[in-house]
Amino acid sequence: MTQVLFKEQAWRFLNDLLQGQKAIILCDSNTKQCLEYFYAACPSAKQFPVIEMSAGELQKNLKTCEMVWYQLTEHGADRNTVLLNVGGGVVTDLGGFIASTYMRGIRFVHVPTSLLGMVDAAIGGKTGVDFGGLKNMVGLFARPEAVIVDSNFLKTLPSKQYRNGLAEVLKHAFISDPELLAMMEENEDELISRSIQVKMDVVERDEFESGERKKLNFGHTIGHAIESYFLDGEKDVLHGEAVAAGMIMESFLSNQIAGLSKEELASIVEVIDSVFSRIELSGDDWKAIKKLMLFDKKNSNGSVRFVLLKSIGHAVTDQAVTEHLLDEAFHFYTGS
Amino acid sequence: MTQVLFKEQAWRFLNDLLQGQKAIILCDSNTKQCLEYFYAACPSAKQFPVIEMSAGELQKNLKTCEMVWYQLTEHGADRNTVLLNVGGGVVTDLGGFIASTYMRGIRFVHVPTSLLGMVDAAIGGKTGVDFGGLKNMVGLFARPEAVIVDSNFLKTLPSKQYRNGLAEVLKHAFISDPELLAMMEENEDELISRSIQVKMDVVERDEFESGERKKLNFGHTIGHAIESYFLDGEKDVLHGEAVAAGMIMESFLSNQIAGLSKEELASIVEVIDSVFSRIELSGDDWKAIKKLMLFDKKNSNGSVRFVLLKSIGHAVTDQAVTEHLLDEAFHFYTGS
Repeated sequence: MTQVLFKEQAWRFLNDLLQGQKAIILCDSNTKQCLEYFYAACPSAKQFPVIEMSAGELQKNLKTCEMVWYQLTEHGADRNTVLLNVGGGVVTDLGGFIASTYMRGIRFVHVPTSLLGMVDAAIGGKTGVDFGGLKNMVGLFARPEAVIVDSNFLKTLPSKQYRNGLAEVLKHAFISDPELLAMMEENEDELISRSIQVKMDVVERDEFESGERKKLNFGHTIGHAIESYFLDGEKDVLHGEAVAAGMIMESFLSNQIAGLSKEELASIVEVIDSVFSRIELSGDDWKAIKKLMLFDKKNSNGSVRFVLLKSIGHAVTDQAVTEHLLDEAFHFYTGS
Repeated sequence: MTQVLFKEQAWRFLNDLLQGQKAIILCDSNTKQCLEYFYAACPSAKQFPVIEMSAGELQKNLKTCEMVWYQLTEHGADRNTVLLNVGGGVVTDLGGFIASTYMRGIRFVHVPTSLLGMVDAAIGGKTGVDFGGLKNMVGLFARPEAVIVDSNFLKTLPSKQYRNGLAEVLKHAFISDPELLAMMEENEDELISRSIQVKMDVVERDEFESGERKKLNFGHTIGHAIESYFLDGEKDVLHGEAVAAGMIMESFLSNQIAGLSKEELASIVEVIDSVFSRIELSGDDWKAIKKLMLFDKKNSNGSVRFVLLKSIGHAVTDQAVTEHLLDEAFHFYTGS
């Protein structure tokens, strides 16, 4: 497994790794402000060229890849160069893909600067970009040399972005570790490391998503489709907001067919609603979102399978759901 | 290692693999004429959609990838779909890259229809496309499910394309198996399978090119640069022609610094000249070609290292060559 390292230990490791090493930094127009702290924590990184992409999920595309690949050649990056991905999920997803395909693969290190990056995107070896309006359609599994986790990056993170990451922490609580819920207001470092541990445990048992790893898709089957649907529209829906909506609907489905009790459903909805506002969805939105679900890459052979909860802390995979029930979940969510 | 299967046995394997399987065929505007024989040999493939790209090394780029990825989504390809790459090195290089990055990787089978594809491109797990005027700049290592080798595809191959593959057969002879030279006029099937065996033996010992595999780059350090140089110009220089030129120059270097005898150099040059015409190169061409060599992805840290021959059948890697000697090799080749 990839090494996930925290704070002082992480920076010592990275500083050592970069001694006498050729490296290039990838960040985006938002996360370049994180470089000041990054350089302070890892002085040996100051000397390296910086490639800056524009911020936002809409930039996670092949056009940005071409820009970055091109700049790597311009900076003379060769097979021994290390790519340092400093940023949120977009930078680490795209940077991991870039590195794994540049000259058939160079080494890379993730330095996540958002909560979503730390507890989810940078962990587990998935890389990729969006394509044809579909999330992560082009990408591959590839392991970073290390993931450098330091919650100091979060001090300047906007609250909307912080919530974006909390959706995944909540998911980790619901599928595996309910005690995370009690930590949310308390020790941030422990919340992060424990949430990472949930994901790493699952990934370790099933790196290439043939079984167990599917559990991490709780809330994401509907959530991804909602996110894709709004991807190039006017409404700005973050990944975490879409997943929060997906978790409410999929918890409803869990109550209907997977054994989740009414009380547990209510408590899940209460926790999610305490962090996220509901997304306004019309009947037409819903029709389009259902269509996108059929294209989610986890849905084989044209049928949609869900990860549902039999109780809080226990997920079950490959649950078939009728379209009628899916529509009921939509009504449950919108109150319509 | 990947299974490389021949003729009847190969077709039986593929027919079985495709039973009840969703698959899509990738070919190009030249190799679509091979589909008739392909369907006859593998009837279960008739039912699958065909994606056709334009032929030629110039099409081995990200724009073509986008077209193919898009068509895969249009055909509803999912994680269980198998991509069948029917064509020469361009189709198998690009198709392997497409498959390994579509939805983070689907299975693929190579069906090489050119000699170059059979003895080189389809063997060894390298995939990729050209980028920024540089060969195979974007790509990765990925193994096909199987490589289906059938020399019947070569019956309609133009002689220029056949020579394109012979360059790699000659290379395999020079670096490891001189007896291949005696087979050139005789048993084609044995020439192919024995040439494949040379490559597979090397790749098996060093899949990710940290040492031994570099031997396969004999003739390619200069050859790749020549090919890149002519890539978007008017002169049509095939990979094999460029490599043939590279092998003559690098054999000269081998004689100067690696112990290759004068007689062996002469016999290498004679064999190559019996198959390939010399490429006309001016002094300005040569300057540009030298510059490109510095960007070859095998050249770490800005220095150019060569694979040279200490004798026919024995290659040595990581040989440093001065620019002066490089210029002499150019004069040796052009007779200037």
